[in-house]
Amino acid sequence: MPVGTQGTVKAVQQETLESLGAQIILGNTYHLYLRPGHEAIRRMGGLHKFISWPHALLTDSGGFQVFSLNELRKVTDDGVHFRSHLDGSSHFFTPEHSIDVQIALGADICMAFDECTEYPADRPRAEESLRLTMAWARRSLDHFRAHRHEVPWHDLVPPVSRPAVVGASTPAPEACRTQSLFGIVQGGMYPDLRRQCAERLVEMDFDGYAIGGLSVGEPRELTLEVIAETLPLLPRDKPRYVMGVGYPDEIEQYARMGVDMMDCVLPTRAARHGLLFTSEGRLNIKNKQYAEDQGPPDLACDCLVCRRYSRAYLRHLMHAGEALSGTLNSIHNLAFYLGIMRRVRQDLASV
Amino acid sequence: MPVGTQGTVKAVQQETLESLGAQIILGNTYHLYLRPGHEAIRRMGGLHKFISWPHALLTDSGGFQVFSLNELRKVTDDGVHFRSHLDGSSHFFTPEHSIDVQIALGADICMAFDECTEYPADRPRAEESLRLTMAWARRSLDHFRAHRHEVPWHDLVPPVSRPAVVGASTPAPEACRTQSLFGIVQGGMYPDLRRQCAERLVEMDFDGYAIGGLSVGEPRELTLEVIAETLPLLPRDKPRYVMGVGYPDEIEQYARMGVDMMDCVLPTRAARHGLLFTSEGRLNIKNKQYAEDQGPPDLACDCLVCRRYSRAYLRHLMHAGEALSGTLNSIHNLAFYLGIMRRVRQDLASV
Repeated sequence: MPVGTQGTVKAVQQETLESLGAQIILGNTYHLYLRPGHEAIRRMGGLHKFISWPHALLTDSGGFQVFSLNELRKVTDDGVHFRSHLDGSSHFFTPEHSIDVQIALGADICMAFDECTEYPADRPRAEESLRLTMAWARRSLDHFRAHRHEVPWHDLVPPVSRPAVVGASTPAPEACRTQSLFGIVQGGMYPDLRRQCAERLVEMDFDGYAIGGLSVGEPRELTLEVIAETLPLLPRDKPRYVMGVGYPDEIEQYARMGVDMMDCVLPTRAARHGLLFTSEGRLNIKNKQYAEDQGPPDLACDCLVCRRYSRAYLRHLMHAGEALSGTLNSIHNLAFYLGIMRRVRQDLASV
Repeated sequence: MPVGTQGTVKAVQQETLESLGAQIILGNTYHLYLRPGHEAIRRMGGLHKFISWPHALLTDSGGFQVFSLNELRKVTDDGVHFRSHLDGSSHFFTPEHSIDVQIALGADICMAFDECTEYPADRPRAEESLRLTMAWARRSLDHFRAHRHEVPWHDLVPPVSRPAVVGASTPAPEACRTQSLFGIVQGGMYPDLRRQCAERLVEMDFDGYAIGGLSVGEPRELTLEVIAETLPLLPRDKPRYVMGVGYPDEIEQYARMGVDMMDCVLPTRAARHGLLFTSEGRLNIKNKQYAEDQGPPDLACDCLVCRRYSRAYLRHLMHAGEALSGTLNSIHNLAFYLGIMRRVRQDLASV
């Protein structure tokens, strides 16, 4: 899932995302709550309409961004006090408020408000953090069930297209007319805490399940271990989503293990810094060796960038500080990522 | 003609320019000479190939940019010494060198090296400046005729598509296989100097003629006056090009007077600052009144931006500092400008 933090996948037009075959994109609740504001988006009919994306959308809970504001936040059992990174104004997010905001945004999939446990976290800290996450999961779900009918597009518009999730059953048409809520498994790097959290969330019966608290600085083997141990604890007939990963080989590996959904800023963020992912590995387009290289970024790729533009041109755009640099690099990286997922889906479908 | 200073019309993909119906774009010789360098572009087969623009291209002479470097240049009869705005390195441009660089870039249309007379300029200053421009026009043309066969695509590629110029006869296929050179009429705001320059240039027999030294701070009525007086002095069967104009109503007015070509950064530069041109006038998309305005930028426009995105979304993108802001605003403004020209062409064709 390409990440569209502020209601745009940075530097890429919605038309282009469609032509790349993107079926679902993310919006970040924290950013959209601050600007332009969830009530404004609600009044305009929800995020789909506001950004003109008549396909599937997912919003995070805002928790991850809020917890990233290390100097600017204070956590209590009730929720999180924080200051805006934009203007320093004070805000308070509770599970109920996160859900209210997400219902106003009206994405197809909302996420429970959780605490993303930092790495490393010792056992008492991970236990305490998990206690919060589980209490907040319950509150998120209760509030969501009581208010999901308040979504701005409820009873107003036909169901938007749904994400094609590997292994997930197609929701009944009726179910399409409201939002879904996913729970998030935390528990740090402790297998028994992960198990305890997964079991408790499955009892609560969410519409899907995410594995959170990964890609927070832990070694890659540990990420893999936690995914491998947690995945079997989650129902196969509901979407299983690993948050915030990863490099191309990682997302392929996780998808083949049974992960249905992943999101990451990496393809677009790396693109803006000149890092291209190709079938032959990573390529830093800034390098001098590409100054007169008239080959495409990736010989094996047939995206619109690789069909038309040369490495030399992309290098020039980057050096000249041109906006088109971020756009073309992002398009290629997204095409590369989406191509991996397409291949994995085909492989799994033919097994 | 959309301006693509550094080999890219800022923030807009070549695919998009094509879909908007742009038939010709500009490249700036000064910028491309400094980065990536004209010899690099020559080795890669010329600017068309480098930027993947298989349509018409025009390069300016570099003179205008060099003269803009007020603190960094020194003019002699031979040429202009200047320092790079990028790294302060020293360079020397003569008419011959400008032509060499433009032949290396290989655009379809090159411009003679001229001195753009500043405004206001008293009579002695305008005369002296014109003396330089006319001497340099001669040298530009002689050097061009002696070296035009050195263009990188000569004898290599089929003719690229040519600009559809209002009133210009279609060049013979053979003529398409090399570049064209346009002379530039200067003379400040003095009608007799303009006439003297125009007559001398026409004697030299350029492939087309530009009226330069406008849009340099003079009142609009004076711009119009100079164009109205100079245009009849230039052959009707060759392209007549007014450089560096203008606002939408200006370009429409000039085109109806018989001007065949114009270039201006205004549609794209204004777009990046949030200024949109519409059928109802100028619209500053940053204004609060558009915060929840779900209408298109221009109700009368059917460009891809007006068909899909709202004023509220464009305002959000601008406020959030998103790259997509410059892209979508630029696409609309270019569509608006190109639409004006299309309408004028249709009107003239039906007369």
